[in-house]
Amino acid sequence: MARWEPDARGRLEKAAMELFEERGYVSTTVEEIAARAGLAERTFFRYFADKREVLFSGAGTLQDLLVNGVAGAPASAAPIEAVVAALEAAGALLQERRDYARQRQMVIAANTELRERELIKLASLATALADALRRRGVKDPAASLTGEAGIAVFKIAFERWLDTPGQRDLPQLIRDSLDELRAVTAGG
Amino acid sequence: MARWEPDARGRLEKAAMELFEERGYVSTTVEEIAARAGLAERTFFRYFADKREVLFSGAGTLQDLLVNGVAGAPASAAPIEAVVAALEAAGALLQERRDYARQRQMVIAANTELRERELIKLASLATALADALRRRGVKDPAASLTGEAGIAVFKIAFERWLDTPGQRDLPQLIRDSLDELRAVTAGG
Repeated sequence: MARWEPDARGRLEKAAMELFEERGYVSTTVEEIAARAGLAERTFFRYFADKREVLFSGAGTLQDLLVNGVAGAPASAAPIEAVVAALEAAGALLQERRDYARQRQMVIAANTELRERELIKLASLATALADALRRRGVKDPAASLTGEAGIAVFKIAFERWLDTPGQRDLPQLIRDSLDELRAVTAGG
Repeated sequence: MARWEPDARGRLEKAAMELFEERGYVSTTVEEIAARAGLAERTFFRYFADKREVLFSGAGTLQDLLVNGVAGAPASAAPIEAVVAALEAAGALLQERRDYARQRQMVIAANTELRERELIKLASLATALADALRRRGVKDPAASLTGEAGIAVFKIAFERWLDTPGQRDLPQLIRDSLDELRAVTAGG
Protein backbone atom coordinates (compact mmCIF):
# COMPACT_ATOMS: atom_id res chain seq x y z
CA MET A 1 0.00 0.00 0.00
CA ALA A 2 1.48 3.30 -1.08
CA ARG A 3 1.01 5.94 1.57
CA TRP A 4 -0.45 9.29 0.71
CA GLU A 5 2.17 11.92 -0.15
CA PRO A 6 1.29 15.61 0.15
CA ASP A 7 1.18 17.31 -3.28
CA ALA A 8 2.84 14.33 -4.97
CA ARG A 9 1.67 15.50 -8.41
CA GLY A 10 3.11 18.99 -7.97
CA ARG A 11 6.41 17.61 -6.64
CA LEU A 12 6.71 15.21 -9.58
CA GLU A 13 5.98 18.00 -12.08
CA LYS A 14 8.57 20.27 -10.50
CA ALA A 15 11.20 17.51 -10.36
CA ALA A 16 10.52 16.50 -13.98
CA MET A 17 10.80 20.07 -15.23
CA GLU A 18 14.09 20.61 -13.38
CA LEU A 19 15.56 17.40 -14.82
CA PHE A 20 14.28 18.10 -18.35
CA GLU A 21 16.06 21.45 -18.20
CA GLU A 22 19.26 20.12 -16.63
CA ARG A 23 19.85 17.02 -18.75
CA GLY A 24 17.25 17.10 -21.49
CA TYR A 25 13.89 15.39 -21.89
CA VAL A 26 15.21 12.30 -23.69
CA SER A 27 17.93 11.51 -21.12
CA THR A 28 15.66 11.84 -18.08
CA THR A 29 14.12 8.67 -16.66
CA VAL A 30 10.99 8.19 -14.56
CA GLU A 31 13.22 6.69 -11.85
CA GLU A 32 15.22 9.94 -11.69
CA ILE A 33 12.08 12.08 -11.59
CA ALA A 34 10.67 10.08 -8.68
CA ALA A 35 14.02 10.17 -6.83
CA ARG A 36 14.33 13.96 -7.27
CA ALA A 37 10.79 14.37 -5.92
CA GLY A 38 11.61 12.08 -2.97
CA LEU A 39 8.90 9.62 -4.03
CA ALA A 40 8.76 6.00 -5.11
CA GLU A 41 8.67 5.17 -8.82
CA ARG A 42 5.28 3.49 -8.38
CA THR A 43 3.94 6.75 -6.96
CA PHE A 44 4.89 8.41 -10.27
CA PHE A 45 2.77 5.87 -12.13
CA ARG A 46 -0.25 6.62 -9.95
CA TYR A 47 -0.29 10.09 -11.51
CA PHE A 48 1.24 9.74 -14.99
CA ALA A 49 1.30 6.95 -17.59
CA ASP A 50 4.82 7.94 -18.67
CA LYS A 51 7.22 10.90 -18.52
CA ARG A 52 5.59 12.55 -21.56
CA GLU A 53 2.32 12.79 -19.66
CA VAL A 54 3.95 15.05 -17.07
CA LEU A 55 3.93 17.68 -19.85
CA PHE A 56 0.50 16.89 -21.31
CA SER A 57 -1.82 15.79 -18.52
CA GLY A 58 -2.89 19.44 -18.13
CA ALA A 59 -4.45 19.33 -21.60
CA GLY A 60 -7.33 17.24 -20.28
CA THR A 61 -8.06 19.82 -17.58
CA LEU A 62 -7.91 22.62 -20.15
CA GLN A 63 -10.30 20.75 -22.44
CA ASP A 64 -12.81 20.26 -19.60
CA LEU A 65 -12.59 23.97 -18.73
CA LEU A 66 -13.24 25.00 -22.33
CA VAL A 67 -16.08 22.54 -22.92
CA ASN A 68 -17.80 23.52 -19.67
CA GLY A 69 -17.26 27.19 -20.48
CA VAL A 70 -18.96 26.83 -23.87
CA ALA A 71 -21.80 24.77 -22.37
CA GLY A 72 -22.38 27.40 -19.67
CA ALA A 73 -22.36 30.47 -21.95
CA PRO A 74 -25.61 32.46 -22.15
CA ALA A 75 -28.02 31.07 -24.75
CA SER A 76 -27.86 34.41 -26.55
CA ALA A 77 -24.05 34.30 -26.99
CA ALA A 78 -22.83 33.95 -30.59
CA PRO A 79 -20.72 30.76 -31.03
CA ILE A 80 -17.43 32.67 -31.35
CA GLU A 81 -18.26 34.67 -28.22
CA ALA A 82 -19.04 31.50 -26.25
CA VAL A 83 -15.69 30.04 -27.35
CA VAL A 84 -13.60 33.15 -26.72
CA ALA A 85 -15.16 33.76 -23.30
CA ALA A 86 -14.24 30.16 -22.37
CA LEU A 87 -10.68 30.72 -23.67
CA GLU A 88 -10.35 33.95 -21.67
CA ALA A 89 -11.48 32.20 -18.48
CA ALA A 90 -8.97 29.38 -19.08
CA GLY A 91 -6.30 32.00 -19.88
CA ALA A 92 -6.88 33.67 -16.50
CA LEU A 93 -6.04 30.36 -14.79
CA LEU A 94 -3.10 29.51 -17.07
CA GLN A 95 -1.40 32.82 -16.44
CA GLU A 96 -1.11 32.03 -12.73
CA ARG A 97 1.56 29.46 -13.72
CA ARG A 98 3.60 31.54 -16.11
CA ASP A 99 7.03 30.23 -15.01
CA TYR A 100 5.88 26.65 -15.35
CA ALA A 101 4.35 27.41 -18.77
CA ARG A 102 7.60 28.95 -20.02
CA GLN A 103 9.72 26.06 -18.76
CA ARG A 104 7.32 23.57 -20.33
CA GLN A 105 7.40 25.45 -23.65
CA MET A 106 11.20 25.36 -23.76
CA VAL A 107 11.24 21.60 -23.17
CA ILE A 108 8.63 21.08 -25.90
CA ALA A 109 10.33 23.43 -28.38
CA ALA A 110 13.55 21.38 -28.14
CA ASN A 111 11.97 18.04 -29.15
CA THR A 112 10.16 17.20 -32.40
CA GLU A 113 8.00 14.46 -30.91
CA LEU A 114 6.83 16.82 -28.13
CA ARG A 115 6.10 19.63 -30.58
CA GLU A 116 3.98 17.20 -32.58
CA ARG A 117 2.18 16.05 -29.43
CA GLU A 118 1.37 19.69 -28.60
CA LEU A 119 -0.10 20.25 -32.09
CA ILE A 120 -2.23 17.13 -31.73
CA LYS A 121 -3.52 18.30 -28.34
CA LEU A 122 -4.46 21.67 -29.87
CA ALA A 123 -6.29 19.92 -32.71
CA SER A 124 -8.18 17.82 -30.12
CA LEU A 125 -9.20 21.03 -28.35
CA ALA A 126 -10.61 22.43 -31.61
CA THR A 127 -12.63 19.23 -32.07
CA ALA A 128 -13.88 19.36 -28.46
CA LEU A 129 -14.96 23.00 -28.89
CA ALA A 130 -16.82 22.14 -32.11
CA ASP A 131 -18.60 19.25 -30.33
CA ALA A 132 -19.57 21.57 -27.46
CA LEU A 133 -21.00 24.05 -29.98
CA ARG A 134 -23.01 21.30 -31.73
CA ARG A 135 -24.55 20.46 -28.36
CA ARG A 136 -25.70 24.12 -28.27
CA GLY A 137 -27.40 23.58 -31.65
CA VAL A 138 -24.71 25.17 -33.84
CA LYS A 139 -24.69 23.54 -37.29
CA ASP A 140 -21.73 22.60 -39.46
CA PRO A 141 -19.59 23.99 -40.98
CA ALA A 142 -20.05 26.87 -38.49
CA ALA A 143 -19.33 24.62 -35.48
CA SER A 144 -16.09 23.20 -36.95
CA LEU A 145 -14.90 26.57 -38.23
CA THR A 146 -15.59 28.27 -34.90
CA GLY A 147 -13.66 25.54 -33.06
CA GLU A 148 -10.71 25.95 -35.44
CA ALA A 149 -10.89 29.75 -35.23
CA GLY A 150 -10.96 29.64 -31.42
CA ILE A 151 -7.86 27.45 -31.26
CA ALA A 152 -6.01 29.62 -33.80
CA VAL A 153 -6.81 32.67 -31.65
CA PHE A 154 -5.65 30.86 -28.50
CA LYS A 155 -2.47 29.46 -30.05
CA ILE A 156 -1.25 32.83 -31.30
CA ALA A 157 -2.18 34.61 -28.05
CA PHE A 158 -0.45 31.93 -25.95
CA GLU A 159 2.75 32.16 -28.02
CA ARG A 160 2.78 35.95 -27.72
CA TRP A 161 2.20 35.70 -23.98
CA LEU A 162 5.13 33.29 -23.55
CA ASP A 163 7.45 35.27 -25.82
CA THR A 164 6.83 38.67 -24.29
CA PRO A 165 9.06 39.44 -21.31
CA GLY A 166 7.27 40.71 -18.24
CA GLN A 167 3.86 39.73 -16.99
CA ARG A 168 1.19 40.29 -19.60
CA ASP A 169 -2.51 39.76 -19.53
CA LEU A 170 -3.29 36.48 -21.36
CA PRO A 171 -7.08 36.98 -21.48
CA GLN A 172 -6.48 40.41 -23.06
CA LEU A 173 -4.08 38.89 -25.61
CA ILE A 174 -6.78 36.31 -26.48
CA ARG A 175 -9.32 39.10 -27.05
CA ASP A 176 -6.78 41.06 -29.15
CA SER A 177 -6.04 37.92 -31.16
CA LEU A 178 -9.76 37.52 -31.97
CA ASP A 179 -9.87 41.14 -33.14
CA GLU A 180 -6.84 40.47 -35.36
CA LEU A 181 -8.44 37.33 -36.78
CA ARG A 182 -11.56 39.34 -37.62
CA ALA A 183 -9.42 41.95 -39.36
CA VAL A 184 -7.39 39.45 -41.39
CA THR A 185 -10.36 37.34 -42.49
CA ALA A 186 -12.21 40.49 -43.52
CA GLY A 187 -9.24 41.11 -45.83
CA GLY A 188 -8.26 44.44 -44.30
CA MET B 1 21.77 -0.46 -61.68
CA ALA B 2 17.99 -0.32 -61.35
CA ARG B 3 16.38 0.09 -64.75
CA TRP B 4 13.86 2.82 -65.33
CA GLU B 5 10.25 1.73 -64.77
CA PRO B 6 7.44 3.68 -66.42
CA ASP B 7 5.26 5.49 -63.81
CA ALA B 8 6.83 3.54 -60.94
CA ARG B 9 5.59 6.09 -58.39
CA GLY B 10 1.99 5.89 -59.63
CA ARG B 11 2.07 2.09 -59.69
CA LEU B 12 3.44 1.94 -56.14
CA GLU B 13 0.78 4.37 -54.89
CA LYS B 14 -2.00 2.38 -56.54
CA ALA B 15 -0.66 -0.94 -55.22
CA ALA B 16 -0.24 0.47 -51.70
CA MET B 17 -3.77 1.88 -51.64
CA GLU B 18 -5.26 -1.44 -52.82
CA LEU B 19 -3.37 -3.37 -50.15
CA PHE B 20 -4.17 -0.86 -47.38
CA GLU B 21 -7.86 -1.29 -48.23
CA GLU B 22 -7.73 -5.09 -48.57
CA ARG B 23 -5.69 -6.01 -45.49
CA GLY B 24 -5.22 -2.80 -43.53
CA TYR B 25 -2.36 -0.33 -43.33
CA VAL B 26 -0.58 -2.00 -40.41
CA SER B 27 -0.53 -5.50 -41.95
CA THR B 28 0.79 -4.37 -45.33
CA THR B 29 4.56 -4.58 -45.95
CA VAL B 30 6.75 -2.66 -48.39
CA GLU B 31 7.67 -6.03 -49.94
CA GLU B 32 4.00 -6.71 -50.71
CA ILE B 33 3.48 -3.23 -52.15
CA ALA B 34 6.45 -3.62 -54.49
CA ALA B 35 5.33 -7.13 -55.52
CA ARG B 36 1.78 -5.94 -56.27
CA ALA B 37 3.20 -3.11 -58.39
CA GLY B 38 5.45 -5.60 -60.20
CA LEU B 39 8.56 -3.75 -59.03
CA ALA B 40 11.59 -4.54 -56.89
CA GLU B 41 11.59 -3.53 -53.22
CA ARG B 42 14.62 -1.30 -53.82
CA THR B 43 12.60 0.56 -56.45
CA PHE B 44 10.06 1.39 -53.72
CA PHE B 45 12.80 2.97 -51.63
CA ARG B 46 13.89 5.17 -54.54
CA TYR B 47 10.51 6.93 -54.21
CA PHE B 48 9.46 6.58 -50.56
CA ALA B 49 11.35 6.40 -47.26
CA ASP B 50 8.75 3.98 -45.83
CA LYS B 51 5.15 2.88 -46.40
CA ARG B 52 3.75 5.86 -44.48
CA GLU B 53 5.36 8.22 -46.99
CA VAL B 54 3.19 6.73 -49.77
CA LEU B 55 0.33 8.58 -48.06
CA PHE B 56 2.18 11.78 -47.18
CA SER B 57 4.73 12.54 -49.88
CA GLY B 58 2.06 14.64 -51.65
CA ALA B 59 2.09 17.09 -48.73
CA GLY B 60 5.45 18.48 -49.90
CA THR B 61 4.05 19.15 -53.36
CA LEU B 62 0.98 20.81 -51.86
CA GLN B 63 3.17 23.00 -49.65
CA ASP B 64 5.26 24.12 -52.66
CA LEU B 65 2.10 24.95 -54.59
CA LEU B 66 0.72 27.04 -51.73
CA VAL B 67 3.96 28.86 -51.00
CA ASN B 68 4.52 29.67 -54.69
CA GLY B 69 0.88 30.73 -55.01
CA VAL B 70 1.22 33.20 -52.12
CA ALA B 71 4.56 34.49 -53.44
CA GLY B 72 3.05 35.03 -56.90
CA ALA B 73 -0.14 36.84 -55.79
CA PRO B 74 -0.54 40.46 -56.93
CA ALA B 75 1.18 42.93 -54.60
CA SER B 76 -2.20 44.54 -53.98
CA ALA B 77 -3.83 41.30 -52.72
CA ALA B 78 -4.79 41.28 -49.05
CA PRO B 79 -2.99 38.46 -47.16
CA ILE B 80 -6.13 36.33 -46.77
CA GLU B 81 -6.89 36.75 -50.50
CA ALA B 82 -3.35 35.68 -51.46
CA VAL B 83 -3.73 32.58 -49.25
CA VAL B 84 -7.22 31.63 -50.39
CA ALA B 85 -6.37 32.11 -54.09
CA ALA B 86 -3.41 29.73 -53.58
CA LEU B 87 -5.69 27.23 -51.81
CA GLU B 88 -8.25 27.43 -54.63
CA ALA B 89 -5.56 26.78 -57.25
CA ALA B 90 -4.28 23.78 -55.26
CA GLY B 91 -7.88 22.60 -54.80
CA ALA B 92 -8.41 22.62 -58.58
CA LEU B 93 -5.49 20.16 -58.91
CA LEU B 94 -6.48 18.03 -55.92
CA GLN B 95 -9.99 17.48 -57.20
CA GLU B 96 -8.64 15.74 -60.29
CA ARG B 97 -7.73 12.83 -57.99
CA ARG B 98 -10.93 12.53 -56.03
CA ASP B 99 -11.02 8.70 -55.91
CA TYR B 100 -7.44 8.58 -54.67
CA ALA B 101 -8.17 11.30 -52.09
CA ARG B 102 -11.18 9.37 -50.76
CA GLN B 103 -9.28 6.08 -50.54
CA ARG B 104 -6.41 7.83 -48.79
CA GLN B 105 -8.79 9.50 -46.31
CA MET B 106 -10.36 6.15 -45.39
CA VAL B 107 -6.94 4.61 -44.70
CA ILE B 108 -5.94 7.60 -42.57
CA ALA B 109 -9.24 7.73 -40.67
CA ALA B 110 -8.76 4.10 -39.55
CA ASN B 111 -5.36 4.66 -37.88
CA THR B 112 -4.53 7.01 -34.99
CA GLU B 113 -0.88 7.45 -35.96
CA LEU B 114 -1.87 8.42 -39.51
CA ARG B 115 -4.55 10.84 -38.31
CA GLU B 116 -1.92 12.50 -36.14
CA ARG B 117 0.52 12.66 -39.06
CA GLU B 118 -2.18 14.37 -41.17
CA LEU B 119 -2.77 16.98 -38.44
CA ILE B 120 0.96 17.66 -38.22
CA LYS B 121 1.19 18.10 -41.99
CA LEU B 122 -1.68 20.60 -41.87
CA ALA B 123 0.03 22.52 -39.06
CA SER B 124 3.22 22.62 -41.17
CA LEU B 125 1.21 24.05 -44.06
CA ALA B 126 -0.10 26.83 -41.78
CA THR B 127 3.48 27.64 -40.76
CA ALA B 128 4.67 27.61 -44.39
CA LEU B 129 1.83 29.98 -45.40
CA ALA B 130 2.70 32.36 -42.55
CA ASP B 131 6.37 32.33 -43.64
CA ALA B 132 5.35 33.07 -47.24
CA LEU B 133 3.25 36.01 -46.01
CA ARG B 134 6.16 37.38 -43.94
CA ARG B 135 8.27 37.36 -47.11
CA ARG B 136 5.55 39.61 -48.60
CA GLY B 137 6.05 42.00 -45.69
CA VAL B 138 3.05 40.91 -43.60
CA LYS B 139 3.74 41.44 -39.89
CA ASP B 140 2.86 39.20 -36.95
CA PRO B 141 0.40 38.32 -35.54
CA ALA B 142 -1.41 38.92 -38.87
CA ALA B 143 0.89 36.52 -40.77
CA SER B 144 0.44 33.65 -38.27
CA LEU B 145 -3.30 34.19 -37.93
CA THR B 146 -3.81 34.33 -41.70
CA GLY B 147 -1.84 31.09 -42.10
CA GLU B 148 -3.96 29.40 -39.42
CA ALA B 149 -7.18 30.81 -40.87
CA GLY B 150 -6.24 29.60 -44.37
CA ILE B 151 -5.61 26.06 -43.16
CA ALA B 152 -8.84 26.02 -41.12
CA VAL B 153 -10.72 27.09 -44.26
CA PHE B 154 -8.97 24.43 -46.34
CA LYS B 155 -9.44 21.63 -43.79
CA ILE B 156 -13.19 22.14 -43.47
CA ALA B 157 -13.66 22.54 -47.24
CA PHE B 158 -11.61 19.41 -47.95
CA GLU B 159 -13.62 17.34 -45.44
CA ARG B 160 -16.90 18.55 -46.93
CA TRP B 161 -15.65 17.76 -50.43
CA LEU B 162 -14.68 14.20 -49.43
CA ASP B 163 -17.89 13.60 -47.49
CA THR B 164 -20.30 14.83 -50.14
CA PRO B 165 -21.27 12.15 -52.68
CA GLY B 166 -20.94 13.20 -56.30
CA GLN B 167 -18.38 15.47 -57.87
CA ARG B 168 -18.31 18.85 -56.18
CA ASP B 169 -16.25 21.89 -56.83
CA LEU B 170 -13.42 22.01 -54.24
CA PRO B 171 -12.27 25.57 -55.09
CA GLN B 172 -15.87 26.75 -54.61
CA LEU B 173 -16.10 24.93 -51.26
CA ILE B 174 -12.86 26.68 -50.20
CA ARG B 175 -14.35 30.06 -51.12
CA ASP B 176 -17.60 29.19 -49.27
CA SER B 177 -15.57 28.10 -46.24
CA LEU B 178 -13.81 31.48 -46.16
CA ASP B 179 -17.20 33.23 -46.27
CA GLU B 180 -18.37 31.05 -43.36
CA LEU B 181 -15.22 31.81 -41.37
CA ARG B 182 -15.83 35.53 -41.90
CA ALA B 183 -19.40 35.12 -40.71
CA VAL B 184 -18.51 33.12 -37.58
CA THR B 185 -15.61 35.36 -36.52
CA ALA B 186 -17.80 38.42 -36.99
CA GLY B 187 -20.10 36.77 -34.41
CA GLY B 188 -23.11 36.56 -36.73
